[in-house]
Amino acid sequence: MKKNALKGTILHTPSKDCFEIHEDAYLIWDGDTVLGIFDEIPTGEEVTVRDCKDRLIIPGMSDLHIHAPQYSFVGIAQNLEDMKWDSWFEKYCFPEESRLKDPEYAVRLYGRLAKDLLHTPTTRLCAYGTIHTDSTIILMQKLSEAGLAGYVGKVNMDRNSMPGLLETTEESISETERFLEETVNRFPGIKPMITPRYVPSCTKRLLNALGDLSNRYKVPVQTHLSERSDEIEWVKQLEPDKDCYARCYEDAGLMQQGYLMAHCVYSDDYELGVLANHSGMIAHCPQGNMNSSGGCAPVRKFLDAGVGVGLGTDVAGGNTLNLFKMVFYAVLASKVRNSKALCCGSNEGILSLSEAFYLATKGGGKMWRTGSFEKGYKMDAVIVDDSRLRGEIKRSPYERLERIIGMSDDREICGKYVNGRVLFYEEKPA
Amino acid sequence: MKKNALKGTILHTPSKDCFEIHEDAYLIWDGDTVLGIFDEIPTGEEVTVRDCKDRLIIPGMSDLHIHAPQYSFVGIAQNLEDMKWDSWFEKYCFPEESRLKDPEYAVRLYGRLAKDLLHTPTTRLCAYGTIHTDSTIILMQKLSEAGLAGYVGKVNMDRNSMPGLLETTEESISETERFLEETVNRFPGIKPMITPRYVPSCTKRLLNALGDLSNRYKVPVQTHLSERSDEIEWVKQLEPDKDCYARCYEDAGLMQQGYLMAHCVYSDDYELGVLANHSGMIAHCPQGNMNSSGGCAPVRKFLDAGVGVGLGTDVAGGNTLNLFKMVFYAVLASKVRNSKALCCGSNEGILSLSEAFYLATKGGGKMWRTGSFEKGYKMDAVIVDDSRLRGEIKRSPYERLERIIGMSDDREICGKYVNGRVLFYEEKPA
Repeated sequence: MKKNALKGTILHTPSKDCFEIHEDAYLIWDGDTVLGIFDEIPTGEEVTVRDCKDRLIIPGMSDLHIHAPQYSFVGIAQNLEDMKWDSWFEKYCFPEESRLKDPEYAVRLYGRLAKDLLHTPTTRLCAYGTIHTDSTIILMQKLSEAGLAGYVGKVNMDRNSMPGLLETTEESISETERFLEETVNRFPGIKPMITPRYVPSCTKRLLNALGDLSNRYKVPVQTHLSERSDEIEWVKQLEPDKDCYARCYEDAGLMQQGYLMAHCVYSDDYELGVLANHSGMIAHCPQGNMNSSGGCAPVRKFLDAGVGVGLGTDVAGGNTLNLFKMVFYAVLASKVRNSKALCCGSNEGILSLSEAFYLATKGGGKMWRTGSFEKGYKMDAVIVDDSRLRGEIKRSPYERLERIIGMSDDREICGKYVNGRVLFYEEKPA
Repeated sequence: MKKNALKGTILHTPSKDCFEIHEDAYLIWDGDTVLGIFDEIPTGEEVTVRDCKDRLIIPGMSDLHIHAPQYSFVGIAQNLEDMKWDSWFEKYCFPEESRLKDPEYAVRLYGRLAKDLLHTPTTRLCAYGTIHTDSTIILMQKLSEAGLAGYVGKVNMDRNSMPGLLETTEESISETERFLEETVNRFPGIKPMITPRYVPSCTKRLLNALGDLSNRYKVPVQTHLSERSDEIEWVKQLEPDKDCYARCYEDAGLMQQGYLMAHCVYSDDYELGVLANHSGMIAHCPQGNMNSSGGCAPVRKFLDAGVGVGLGTDVAGGNTLNLFKMVFYAVLASKVRNSKALCCGSNEGILSLSEAFYLATKGGGKMWRTGSFEKGYKMDAVIVDDSRLRGEIKRSPYERLERIIGMSDDREICGKYVNGRVLFYEEKPA
């Protein structure tokens, strides 16, 4: 098979500590795998080159936490009048998720989501569906048809939900098994994930059964962990014999096939120790966390504990599909954690922009070995046209990227590749 | 003169505690002044009606803090690699402001700024220029030509700046007097403001002279106050005889004609007491504050102290001209201040969305008696088309506004009125 290349200004973060920037360079790949960044096409190589000219080429980003059914009310209900985030579940989250009982609605909502995701920096995602198996399979189909990659989970909830969004334990187990059977080898790029919503929504018996399924089918697990202080208190009441929240998942066998824990805002060293004993990732959702409780997760501690970390939009806890915004918020949240004005002053140190960008690309991309243009990585790339954002002064590629992270939207995303395959590329208007 | 009306879904906050929402109603005004919101055109009245159909009509917003010359690098340098915000001044802020020595550059930069401001919810602003009188006059001209209203200040700096951006005390005083002479009655809608950058940039002799000018010309004053903890320490060293930062301004006579203090992140009850003794406003810049130091100002305390409060984008400390985003960030910052995760837990209470919206409209608009559709208010209005943001489910006007605040950009702003005069109105594509 002939090799391919993108030519342009290429930025990535092989190490989290700094950007590697190549101007007027070639990103070459073979099939679905990156060969590297080159100043010239190596002699003797037959390579098809797409010249992106003055556009920027960056690795595709991974959205490690997104509630697909909640895209219906993204941007809404982040400021309920009674100011209680808890009521967010009763007034919006649960009723909106209940709509997914209707597969026709799933076709429309998830079709729009997949379409809108194209004009974002996201190439891979770990998405929650709902308890509804068939609608969740439609979500996988729509994402797969759009050419995106990642994991999707049918959500499990056998307690503390509302009518219409509650399963019996038996139903939840058997539907999960049906979900796995029907999707394990069905959609190119999109795989199933075991997805208990969180401990308050799942009995111990259900968690144990899901642990068995995860290990039997060798399927990884995504769930929520230690997002809010009131949630942690609730978990203590529900599962008084566990020494920490994470242990509920560990004891059920849910951390053996690779775990993906969303949030961990309140995870202490002890809980991080439990996580570090297994292979897995934390989905850091800086905007969602601030929205939900004003909290900012201790990302520096995650990194120091050796736990993998990526970013998540947490839609609809977050209000955008745009992971550039999450890079910006990740830095902002780390500043807040270190602020003296808030009597926290954790002294963990502020995240640099390259660290935050790394989390969105290579950090989260670890799940698929993508998000970097090093040799052997899966070739996911996003092409950004920042013409609209330029001013009077010529800026360096780094400055341009900074502005893109802070200010760009769907209009700047002009091309995308996943696994070496082009999803779309818009030529510059003449 | 014939009266005018806008018909559509009208939202405003006469009181900060809730939104007033009128569907299919008429906002009627006479000349530059609002008559009120009506269900029907009053009988016998001759009124020219523009039907905005399903678009939303909201009061114009006031951006109480924006550094116009810094628009050149908006979105850049918010994450300097060495992670020291201080170097932001030396590497970006001061060098970029120095460019305004060239009036040709001012024409280009400020022309673009004025144009870009049109497609934001802003109708009024309080802008900083630079030390350069002629370029600052060009800024006023560009804003005035665009139809916007507000105040603009020639900045004063006679110490602790860099070459090319430093005046002698005499120059600073005489240029300020020239600035006032040339602009006090020159531009419709755009008036001059006395603008000492902040205490570290201005000697006591300069501040005293500016106080005299303010009182002689009856011109209000804008400056910075208590933004960062290191700034406050510096002010203590520079002016050891003052019992608080605000006193430096008060003693110079700079708080008698109406003050506008940006930030006040670290203002304690004592300093708020000094402010409350005079008539004036605080420009709350939630995004700029988090960017700068991770800090979140005690807005609830400002309100309780009876000090006026509005919002500011703080460009280029903030990265957008869009005040909707600042409404969102104002709520977010208040959540952060109340978060237990950050061991602050101020218990001041979270800002509601209506409170944050009020700050951006009627709160900041207090300077001109605008920002509300109550009778007697100056008629500033913004028309928002949220077609692009709609999904499968029909939403209430409140929910639509919430989504606009969280997710809209320049594409949603389809019309604007200032002082009863239309700046532009784009008909819906057929």
